[in-house]
Amino acid sequence: MSKILLYISFVGTNYCGYQIQPNGVTIQQRLNEAAEALFGYPCDVVGCSRTDSGVHAAQFCATVSKKGEGHLLTTVPTNKIPLAISKYLPSDISVYLAREVDDDFHARYDVVSKEYIYRIWNSQVRNPFEDGRSYHYPKAISRESINLMNEAAKHFIGTKDFTSFMAADSKIVDATRTVYSAEVERYGDLVTFRVSANGFLYNMVRIMTGTLLAVAEGKILPENIDAIIESKDRSRAGFTAPPCGLYLNKVEYNIDHK
Amino acid sequence: MSKILLYISFVGTNYCGYQIQPNGVTIQQRLNEAAEALFGYPCDVVGCSRTDSGVHAAQFCATVSKKGEGHLLTTVPTNKIPLAISKYLPSDISVYLAREVDDDFHARYDVVSKEYIYRIWNSQVRNPFEDGRSYHYPKAISRESINLMNEAAKHFIGTKDFTSFMAADSKIVDATRTVYSAEVERYGDLVTFRVSANGFLYNMVRIMTGTLLAVAEGKILPENIDAIIESKDRSRAGFTAPPCGLYLNKVEYNIDHK
Repeated sequence: MSKILLYISFVGTNYCGYQIQPNGVTIQQRLNEAAEALFGYPCDVVGCSRTDSGVHAAQFCATVSKKGEGHLLTTVPTNKIPLAISKYLPSDISVYLAREVDDDFHARYDVVSKEYIYRIWNSQVRNPFEDGRSYHYPKAISRESINLMNEAAKHFIGTKDFTSFMAADSKIVDATRTVYSAEVERYGDLVTFRVSANGFLYNMVRIMTGTLLAVAEGKILPENIDAIIESKDRSRAGFTAPPCGLYLNKVEYNIDHK
Repeated sequence: MSKILLYISFVGTNYCGYQIQPNGVTIQQRLNEAAEALFGYPCDVVGCSRTDSGVHAAQFCATVSKKGEGHLLTTVPTNKIPLAISKYLPSDISVYLAREVDDDFHARYDVVSKEYIYRIWNSQVRNPFEDGRSYHYPKAISRESINLMNEAAKHFIGTKDFTSFMAADSKIVDATRTVYSAEVERYGDLVTFRVSANGFLYNMVRIMTGTLLAVAEGKILPENIDAIIESKDRSRAGFTAPPCGLYLNKVEYNIDHK
């Protein structure tokens, strides 16, 4: 059997992000423990991206293989793996699909595109059901503001150096990314920002969101976005919106189902 | 100033139901604490119904008045009360509306109708975002089963003695209630049962839900529902579906906004 690619969803509230780290429980750690419990030996788990503490995923992808071997040895049929491994996962993490991929497949480097959604609860009143699952932004965002945010979001689209939309302490050398789509929508009191790209810089979606909220507040004009991008100056963009509103929503690979 | 009627939403997961009790934290207790913190004196808080541990509310109503006085003395304008009191409430409880009502208004006895929704997550795979917020029922409910459940639900409608749909240890003497509407719908992997009535018996919606799932499984036929009701025998109805799927969704009073 080859490597197995898992499709995972998780509520990130109780985790210190995806990547294993010495202090605090992570998604990767829980996946590692579950894989070892199911397959009976230590495994390598490689995720499609690092996500921050408190960030959620409707779709996250990770490969599992026997530690150091690059492939998996198991009698569990691939289509039975999701339910089987989910039994060893806590209730805030679930595997909903598994597929075989080649040994040289890499969950992170082989990503073709990713889509994130940022959810904003836009009502004066808190919504208990949205606690930790969206950013509570009480100031009313008008229909006109949504239009302006969309106008601004259009300026994100294309192949650009997004240094201005990257955490200032980030170590990335080439900050060029291609944004395919960027759109703001309102559903009742919920405002969403949906953005897809070939890759994202550290905090990129959260800074984009903060910038769009600055547009809603009239502090940044849609036509300023190009200049902010060109400046390569983090301080010109908006604030970093909190992690609780961020969802990795889609991960696409250039492979067919085997 | 008269009594104040609060419109509240809460995620019930971390509470031992609405009603104050010696062991465990309740919604009423948190409302009492918040009212006292805001108004500066002990208050009477009277809720529209008792809800079980783990049950949620999109709309719950409760009156607040100065302890023993039947009305409230405050300089806080009524329309400012929701945000003001919510500041003293934990993140899983929120007050979104307040209105003045007469001193003799009773949050429970003056209810004209209530609507509950029971949410079922119907997929083999767990959904982490639905954990504690719906009942995970992995067996596939077909389109035909949804139709049968709806056919069965129609038999709940009317003025009937619902003893068969009441917790066996309940002390209610008159179990006659009028059900106004009862409907099952599917939205993707989510199946909802929505029911409104002039009042509900203890565990009534949860037993109705368990009975509808028995219909989906072919264990009870829609045309059996009348006989189950007539039998006044709890053991003839289905199981009591777990509390996590239950939401008080609407409470209606026969009063106009003042």
